[in-house]
Amino acid sequence: MGFAERLFTRVEEKGSPAMLGLDPRPDHFPEPFRARARSADPEVAAEAFRAFHRELLELAAPYVAAVKPQVAFFERLGAPGLAALADAVAHARALDLVVVVDAKRGDIGSTAAAYAEAWLAGGQAGAALPPGDALTVNPYLGEDACAPFVEAARSRDAGLFFLVKTSNPGAGLFQDHGEPPLAEVVAERVAAWGRELRDETGWSSIGAVVGATRPDELARFRALMPHAPLLLPGYGFQGGSADGLAAAFDELGRGAIVNSSRGILHAHERDDLAHLPDWKDRTRRALEEMRDDLRAALGR
Amino acid sequence: MGFAERLFTRVEEKGSPAMLGLDPRPDHFPEPFRARARSADPEVAAEAFRAFHRELLELAAPYVAAVKPQVAFFERLGAPGLAALADAVAHARALDLVVVVDAKRGDIGSTAAAYAEAWLAGGQAGAALPPGDALTVNPYLGEDACAPFVEAARSRDAGLFFLVKTSNPGAGLFQDHGEPPLAEVVAERVAAWGRELRDETGWSSIGAVVGATRPDELARFRALMPHAPLLLPGYGFQGGSADGLAAAFDELGRGAIVNSSRGILHAHERDDLAHLPDWKDRTRRALEEMRDDLRAALGR
Repeated sequence: MGFAERLFTRVEEKGSPAMLGLDPRPDHFPEPFRARARSADPEVAAEAFRAFHRELLELAAPYVAAVKPQVAFFERLGAPGLAALADAVAHARALDLVVVVDAKRGDIGSTAAAYAEAWLAGGQAGAALPPGDALTVNPYLGEDACAPFVEAARSRDAGLFFLVKTSNPGAGLFQDHGEPPLAEVVAERVAAWGRELRDETGWSSIGAVVGATRPDELARFRALMPHAPLLLPGYGFQGGSADGLAAAFDELGRGAIVNSSRGILHAHERDDLAHLPDWKDRTRRALEEMRDDLRAALGR
Repeated sequence: MGFAERLFTRVEEKGSPAMLGLDPRPDHFPEPFRARARSADPEVAAEAFRAFHRELLELAAPYVAAVKPQVAFFERLGAPGLAALADAVAHARALDLVVVVDAKRGDIGSTAAAYAEAWLAGGQAGAALPPGDALTVNPYLGEDACAPFVEAARSRDAGLFFLVKTSNPGAGLFQDHGEPPLAEVVAERVAAWGRELRDETGWSSIGAVVGATRPDELARFRALMPHAPLLLPGYGFQGGSADGLAAAFDELGRGAIVNSSRGILHAHERDDLAHLPDWKDRTRRALEEMRDDLRAALGR
């Protein structure tokens, strides 16, 4: 089954295009895990990551189609952190969640191939890391540098999400440079790279990242990349709302996935949920809110 | 001591701006390490990485000022690979080599800060990874996304090398987009970010990557970034030569560092060095050639 079909089948099953970002910031872990997650011993901290993510993934699985581990926060723990990431990826896959590894990698030639192998093919001999279903990629180095990622996606039935227009306020400095703006030039290339990689659903395995903070630009990027699944980060904490995201979806509710990280991960700290005694109940409430909000905005 | 002063002091000590790239491709390891490096058990492979890099760093230390481990090839081995990278970084620093972690990271806000912490500050509590002296960064996400890296460099006396114009043949697709070309816009920002971060040498800790394959463009980028140390990759294997690199250096021989990875790492496979029985002798010969070639081209 192609990547897009796997992804959108999960979206249909869950009745929502919600994606949970795993950005493990130890200072914001729920109380039962926080002290250990902040340990100066990376092995102790990584063990807390592992325990927290297992519980979190189990409680989130009914509400989200996909998860997006952010590699930076695991890399902060060195080798034990990478082992904790591998554990989260394996656990998410066992729960039938689509895993998009948010590594934003990008390099030239054989180095790009090494990154693709690490994150989409299990690493050396397939035995080093559980493979993600998809990977985020930074396109700055050009077509020859992106090609090894596209080839890995093709040969592995995996997905890619190229950074096109990111969710941060200053994204335009370089991404809007020139006429047409660079992000549109990148979008056209992403569409071309994915043209031959469409599956049964008609959607390609080659997707793009466009900030959920940019509803005014979504229709334009959708038109430039008519078959690319869009990963829309920035919902919730970064200020993106469900309103205005409809342009990314087709009439079947396919075409995009909406990520929230801190909006879910920090929900246990919300004053208005303090009446719920357990971090799990608060987190579940935030997941329900996100699902319902997206359903309403998309008219499902 | 500022990053630039550390870097250029080493260059003066070695009498050469040569940098050795550590791109561990198991198929090209010297025979004593090759079979283990190709193992399907990542622990076994990582142990071969460790043993090889210790010997390689010791034999290379008299000839190079700096080393540039390429994170992708360690990430292919998952957690044991990251431990092998940590070992190489620690060993290189113990040999007084400047370590530029070639990770090409880039992300927004607090995620960028997490990457900077991982690679420049030892990770969580400074205990997860030995810190590099500098890090390569991809600027595509814009100024607000680059700022946490710059702040980490400032507070840690560390260095950064932002990708400006890369060494691959297709670099221009996005990097030459617009008028002025994007790479020049990025170069101007890199110069601005580094303006307040110059040390005793007059050079900044905020540098840039410009391919050694682009001698025709070097003078232009040097003019746009008059105080930025330049990392020039692509010497040797990728076709870059020492001729034409002089524009990157000042009259004291400071200003840039020239990287060779495969030109050194694969030297033991060269037919014309087959009369030297040991991989170490062949590698040493290639290191001497690079040093002498750079000295001649730079008129030292």
